[in-house]
Amino acid sequence: MTTPFSSVAAFQEMLASAPAQHSDAMAAAQERNGQLTKPPGALGRLEYLAIWYAGWRGTARPQIMRPQVVVFAGNHGVTAQGVSAFPAEVTAQMVQNFEQGGAAINQLANCFGARVDVHALSLESPTVDFTAAPAMNDVEFLKALEIGWQAVDADSDILICGEMGIGNTTAAAAIALALFGGEASDWVGRGTGVDDAGLANKARVVEKGVALHGNSAQTGLDVLRCLGGRELAAIAGAIARARMLRIPVILDGFICTAAAACLDQPRRGALDHCVAGHVSVEPGHARLLDALEKVALLSLGMRLGEGSGAALALGVLKGAVACHSGMASFAEAGVSKT
Amino acid sequence: MTTPFSSVAAFQEMLASAPAQHSDAMAAAQERNGQLTKPPGALGRLEYLAIWYAGWRGTARPQIMRPQVVVFAGNHGVTAQGVSAFPAEVTAQMVQNFEQGGAAINQLANCFGARVDVHALSLESPTVDFTAAPAMNDVEFLKALEIGWQAVDADSDILICGEMGIGNTTAAAAIALALFGGEASDWVGRGTGVDDAGLANKARVVEKGVALHGNSAQTGLDVLRCLGGRELAAIAGAIARARMLRIPVILDGFICTAAAACLDQPRRGALDHCVAGHVSVEPGHARLLDALEKVALLSLGMRLGEGSGAALALGVLKGAVACHSGMASFAEAGVSKT
Repeated sequence: MTTPFSSVAAFQEMLASAPAQHSDAMAAAQERNGQLTKPPGALGRLEYLAIWYAGWRGTARPQIMRPQVVVFAGNHGVTAQGVSAFPAEVTAQMVQNFEQGGAAINQLANCFGARVDVHALSLESPTVDFTAAPAMNDVEFLKALEIGWQAVDADSDILICGEMGIGNTTAAAAIALALFGGEASDWVGRGTGVDDAGLANKARVVEKGVALHGNSAQTGLDVLRCLGGRELAAIAGAIARARMLRIPVILDGFICTAAAACLDQPRRGALDHCVAGHVSVEPGHARLLDALEKVALLSLGMRLGEGSGAALALGVLKGAVACHSGMASFAEAGVSKT
Repeated sequence: MTTPFSSVAAFQEMLASAPAQHSDAMAAAQERNGQLTKPPGALGRLEYLAIWYAGWRGTARPQIMRPQVVVFAGNHGVTAQGVSAFPAEVTAQMVQNFEQGGAAINQLANCFGARVDVHALSLESPTVDFTAAPAMNDVEFLKALEIGWQAVDADSDILICGEMGIGNTTAAAAIALALFGGEASDWVGRGTGVDDAGLANKARVVEKGVALHGNSAQTGLDVLRCLGGRELAAIAGAIARARMLRIPVILDGFICTAAAACLDQPRRGALDHCVAGHVSVEPGHARLLDALEKVALLSLGMRLGEGSGAALALGVLKGAVACHSGMASFAEAGVSKT
């Protein structure tokens, strides 16, 4: 499959003409919601979720039949700086675990009827240590965007992007600092489990990387190329493709959200088709969601990645859509309204 | 089916000898959790949930195969005091809607593979207005407990109790005030949608009922008989049965939780097999969960009842158990530990 962009600039330009929700379908869904056998507003956030979903799918009574989880894996040169509690070879080992169905994301996807596709991105060639030079050159970055783009099945009706990459909370923190400012310590966390000294080191590494690239990076995509990793770029490519196809997306944790945020800067609105599935205990995630004005569906102390928080939130979205599209109206059920 | 209690006193006595978790299974589940292919603690609350569930089910690697939702419906004499935005005939209309599969709980149960049983409790004979006399006499109360008890299928592996009963947030608020004190205004909310004047009236009604019965009610069960309704008593009966069978329970909203709380007073621990599925926007619910030291899994602005919040939380519990029982260990997957 070819992509409709042959450069990062063309990708950026395409985003500017991304489609919006179907306003007719949204209005019809809103109307339907008011007729369902429940007190007005009694399903709370589920009602907004279902109407939002209906708007993107272009029908007042949508169904979720083909959820897709795509897990992207990449390796990071910045691990040379000692930023992770796990060795870098774990990335490839976990890819095998995903492929064999043994990881958390496999169980959650199975639980909620989602397929899982796994894409390992050049694990044998980690990105460049971003404290020394840009993590990716233009060719590498474009390739990763393309892999993400191509990973989305046009027949999917909801997309979840997961990631695996030892060192990638460091990349995500650097992206967040470059995009939204503050201090490095605002954005770094323990990732898979670094100690206090590791945390302080992570903050220094993030600060150094942003100091090196922060001024030259003009757009979110520049930030993503200089500080991100291949799996983060692929997530951005997949989320962009979903937008062009009007497939709603459930965002996962800190890393996924940081990758997504790069699409949304400088021009806001690129993530209107995305809902925040959960808020991670990785401390930068709540701050990042605030910056994107997203409110998480779940808050369960998770910090695994892989798309796991979003996959769990798929249950909530499925429930919301099932209520909206399956409930009887007052008239159908012969129930008195107030 | 007969019940192992022939009086409310015998029911209370039975609760005092309720079984605890299997400590061996819990320890084995804890051990298993430490071996799974994820950083320690990275699934957050899902890990605790799965271990808790394993302890009650008596196996280190449980599965959720037969979830049961039981919806109890009752009518309340206190509606004569103008405490609800909907007329009392809606209770029977909604029972029909449950039976025809048109309500929110039907969609959610279907979504997460749960059966739904509906029990309408003497809808033609509302309980007595509790501002005038006890809502139920001993015979009526015992009968409702029995119906709840008998509604639980011994083969179920998770129980959700839902309710429908115009006026029952008023009953729940009165129970909460009698059990935990404070002011009536701490516990009343808008229910299905009363206005400010309706809310003030509700508080007066609750205060009056508790003033009449608060001193004579010595136990939670006395409170439930004097201020509750048949559907609340049935919920208490069902939760007690689940405990005797070591079937874990997901609590729903304010009304379900108020009914459950009556089992837990004066002797704490009767709800150790229960997890709080969600926190409702009915303001007394958060306060009630605090009093019971339960932390809700979901907070999505719901206030519908029917078991809907708990049914949505079933997705979270299923996800937690699926991860726990389905994931590969580090050794199985050949993944390096830290």
